[in-house]
Parts: sequence; C-alpha cells; structure tokens
Amino acid sequence: SSLLNCRCEGVIRGIGDDAAVLDVEGERALLVTIDSLVENIHFTLKTHTPYQLGYKAMAVNLSDIAAMGGEPKYALVSLSARPDLKLQLIEGIYEGMEEMAREAGVSIVGGDTTSSQSHLFISVAVIGECPKEEVIYRSGAKVGDVVILTGTAGDSAAGLRLLSGSKAPSLSQKEIEYLERRHLMPRPRLKAARKIASLKLASAMIDVSDGVSSEVSHICRSSRVGAEIHAERIPISEPARKFASDLGISPLKLALDGGEDYELLLTASEDKVEEIRSTLAEMNLGISVIGRILPHDRGCVLKSRGEEFELRGGGFTHFHPASDEVT
Amino acid sequence: SSLLNCRCEGVIRGIGDDAAVLDVEGERALLVTIDSLVENIHFTLKTHTPYQLGYKAMAVNLSDIAAMGGEPKYALVSLSARPDLKLQLIEGIYEGMEEMAREAGVSIVGGDTTSSQSHLFISVAVIGECPKEEVIYRSGAKVGDVVILTGTAGDSAAGLRLLSGSKAPSLSQKEIEYLERRHLMPRPRLKAARKIASLKLASAMIDVSDGVSSEVSHICRSSRVGAEIHAERIPISEPARKFASDLGISPLKLALDGGEDYELLLTASEDKVEEIRSTLAEMNLGISVIGRILPHDRGCVLKSRGEEFELRGGGFTHFHPASDEVT
Repeated sequence: SSLLNCRCEGVIRGIGDDAAVLDVEGERALLVTIDSLVENIHFTLKTHTPYQLGYKAMAVNLSDIAAMGGEPKYALVSLSARPDLKLQLIEGIYEGMEEMAREAGVSIVGGDTTSSQSHLFISVAVIGECPKEEVIYRSGAKVGDVVILTGTAGDSAAGLRLLSGSKAPSLSQKEIEYLERRHLMPRPRLKAARKIASLKLASAMIDVSDGVSSEVSHICRSSRVGAEIHAERIPISEPARKFASDLGISPLKLALDGGEDYELLLTASEDKVEEIRSTLAEMNLGISVIGRILPHDRGCVLKSRGEEFELRGGGFTHFHPASDEVT
Repeated sequence: SSLLNCRCEGVIRGIGDDAAVLDVEGERALLVTIDSLVENIHFTLKTHTPYQLGYKAMAVNLSDIAAMGGEPKYALVSLSARPDLKLQLIEGIYEGMEEMAREAGVSIVGGDTTSSQSHLFISVAVIGECPKEEVIYRSGAKVGDVVILTGTAGDSAAGLRLLSGSKAPSLSQKEIEYLERRHLMPRPRLKAARKIASLKLASAMIDVSDGVSSEVSHICRSSRVGAEIHAERIPISEPARKFASDLGISPLKLALDGGEDYELLLTASEDKVEEIRSTLAEMNLGISVIGRILPHDRGCVLKSRGEEFELRGGGFTHFHPASDEVT
C-alpha cells in the first residue's frame, strides 16, 4: 500500500510498526498509534465487565507505545455505543480506561461519544514520546542476536478459554483468577520497555498481541532476517501448563498462537543478556532467551524435539511442504 | 466529567474545545483530535460514494485542527468494516482520505483495518501543530467583539436534503451540484484559519459542524459571555435560498440549525474586521459580521424583525418562555 511507503516530511516511520514515529521539534520523537476494539469481534460484554474492557482497551494501545521504547503521555478516546447500553456501563468503561491511564501516567485529553446502531466500538489513539535515538523498531534485528521474551506466554489464551466455559479441574481458584486476569486486564510492560530503550539494550522490539509465532515472524520480515526459536525454552506458567494438560492440548500452541499476552519480544546482542536480565529483575520481571536471529535464507523456524516448523502469522506449521496440510 | 478538568502535566487544554492542546518541547503546541463516523448515524453509503465518505471523514477532522488555528500534520485512521463490504469499497474510502490529506499537506501515518459485524465505523485521529501563543480557543471571546462567519451557512443542510430526495424545481443542475458537494465533500478552511491565527486576528474560533446556532452558544458558554446575532446578516447562498423557497422552509433555519458547513465562526475586536476581510479575500473567502459579543447576563440571542430568540445547541427557540413549545 502507498501508506506503507510514506516518505513524508517529519515522518521517521509510518505504517508498519507498533506505532508511527514523528520528527517534531526538540530531541524527542513523537510516537502515535490508534486501534479500535469492536464488540463481538475483539471482545464481548459477556466475558469482560465494562471496567475491564476499558482497562484493556487502554492497556493494549499503551503497549504499542511501549513496544517502540516510548513513554505514553496522552490518549484520545472515541466510543460509539448502541442505544440499549446503559449510561452506567459507558461510565464503567471510562473508569477502566482512566484507571489504566492513571497507572501509566497518561492523560486522557479528548475524544467523543456517539451512538451506533447495533454494536459497541471503542477507538483509542495514544501519543507518546521517546528520545529520537532510543526508538526501537521491529526492523533492527541483526544476525547473531538472541531472541528474548519477558514474562510468560499463553496465559491470556488460557484465561480466555476459561472465561468462555472451558473446565480445568486441576486448577485452584487462585490459578483460574490469575489466568483470567491476564486476559481481562493485561498490564503492558511500560517501565521495562522504557528501561530497555533508555539503556539501548535491544536491537528490535515488539509486543505480543498476536502470539509469539506472529511476532517473531513480524520481526523476521521487517528486519529481513531468519530466526530459530526453541520450543522448550518458551516460558509457560504453571497454571497455563496445568490448563493445557487438563484440556489435553499443547501448552506450546497456547503460547505460540494464543496472543494477547502483552509481553515484550525483543532481540539483542548476546553480550547484553545479563544486563537485560538484571535490569528487568529489579522490576520483578523475568526473561527467557528463546532463540537466535539467523540469516534471512534460513527462514523463521521453530525447533522442537529434532523437528523444524515454519513460524508465521497465525501460528506455526510443519516446515516440510509435503506435510503442510496435516498440521 | 473528570475528563473536562484535566490539570495534567503537559496538557494546556484537555476536552472541551475542537482539539486538545499539548505542551511539548519547542515553541509549538501539539493539537490532537479524534472523531468517529458511524454508518447510519453519521453517514450512509446511499448518499456518499466511498471516495466522498473518506474525503469527508478526513476533512471534518482536519477542520477541528483548523478551528484552533493549527496546521494539521499527521492522521491515524482506524476502519472497521462489515464483512459484506467489498475490498474495492474500502479502497475507495482510503483514496478519498488520501486525497483530502494530500490537499491539506497531511501524512496518514498509521491505523488499522478490522472487521465489524454489521456496520462501517471510521475513526480518524489528527495531530497538528500551532505556535503556542497563536492557539485560538472557544473561550477567548470578549464583550464588544464582533461575531464573524466565513462563507455561507446552510448549504450542506440543503445538499443533504437534496441527496435524500427533496425536489427543488427552481434549482439548476449546477446549483444542485453545488449544494450536494458542500455536503458530500466539505473543504475545511485550513489556510484561512491558520492565517487568522498567525496574524492574531481572532479572540475565539470554532468550526461550524453543528450549525451556527450551536456554535455561537458553544462560544458563549466557554467564554462566559452573551451574544446577539442578527438573522438578516447570516450569509446564505443563492442556491440555498432558492432551495428553501421551493420547499417552503425558512432559509434561516437551514443556516442556523443545519450544520456540517465547516465554515469558521470567530470573534474579533471590531478594529480587526477590515484586516480579516482583506486577508481572507485574498483566498477568495468572504466574511460576514453577524453579531456582537455581550455581557453574560444578556444571554445568547438571535434578533429577527424586532423579535428575540434564544440561541442554543440544536437550534434557536423563541426567547419568551411562554411560547417555547410553539417554535
């Protein structure tokens, strides 16, 4: 699309990353992003309370600024509500948004509320800042870099299934609440991302909204590199493992395809790993080295028990073309 | 609302004006705004082509930046499309947006396209700039200032009625096209507004999205002043007058209540009127002095043939409470 190739005055990076990067006066670039959440497509009021929905709508947009290394500063909110929604519900959504914004030090500075005929739509635009030389793009990964993931993957996908009625008898109530909360009220890794950017520890970064599989392939495509990810190194929480075991599904599939974890996936020179580990440990955030960046012609692959799978948007498929249809 | 009283770091003006005003590095403030257009609420694909819809969605948001005296620079677009909409239609919308953006020197730097179940939603966020000391608020009107309107009012309302099936036999095809175009593809007064701001000619400014009536009352409320508007001085185009005459309706009502003209309504010290007139004349844009700012206790009134009406959002009503219900 022509939008992808915006070579316009003042635009450092247009469409194609988590946020656009704008060159304004001073030493700081402006980071801007917009996303819409559509009822029955991205959420349902059956699983989210209005407060949780507002909290999440703000969180996922702030996460896009974090993924660039920036500090979110301002948000604009446009909400279109079907006529049967009570004012109290709308207020609940705004309260959730305000709470997430407050936690992040973000000011909600504008927006509008309109009606819609039959569905609830929420658009949030966020404006953030980052010193120009600290912005982290998807496109900066270098051959030889390691691939790092913060926290754990797959919790949100497990939480969504629990909220949708899946039963996992071996989970305690506390574990169920943990997984559900990871889906309902994700906390973007704002401070960790900003710290990584300010110390220039990462070569590329992205937030895990679509699943580890998709995000690794986004970085490979943007950086024109390959990557190998080791399945057994993907960090999966104990509750998510128990959940997968109860349901007889692969915990790896939850982590790779599930999405909405809002953890950070980053690449870094190997000699930075310990500094990243100790820096994030101070925020009680663990990291896992899950793979390595390879030359482009090596492709973007997942290694698991001696087998290789191709990583791509929407999940991983068996790497050998002949067996493509059976995965 | 708590959002209206945002006294946050870096926020010069939050919700309550055409755009929020942010204090960033350097001499320029950042102006930011978001608005959503919802199918069957704000538009229908029966009257707008996709191209016209995109053009207008961008235009009305750019107009909000113009109304503050700013220069729009960047836009973010989020579009949610019902599944039966063809790709060609979506592309048409983006083409219209890109055309308006190009005309205005604005770069579309990001956004997303998602699905919706049953309606088309378009959210546009715009980021603009303005030297901090040149921003024009709704709240700056002073007692004794004159009230000025650019161009003509009521054309868009007449155009919408024509598009919706109203017949006006005395209009030529060219006149019909003029009125319809004023509704379908409004051109925000970007250059005129920026010029007025850079020369510090206006004390308050707003764009006419809801109708002259609403906009005058917005300025009165924000500036805590009163105003008298003289009905016979409201600028109404010859085609709009003919249209009103054919339909047996009041042309004044079209102009005051109709909205979507995207002209500028501003207040200024009387000694600036000739400079405003000659400056805008260079852009082939006429102005009309339609009234005067009064002390707050005088109210916000429309004078017509010796009678007084109260001006307010959604139109004007007879000023005498006893006859409120008959207007």
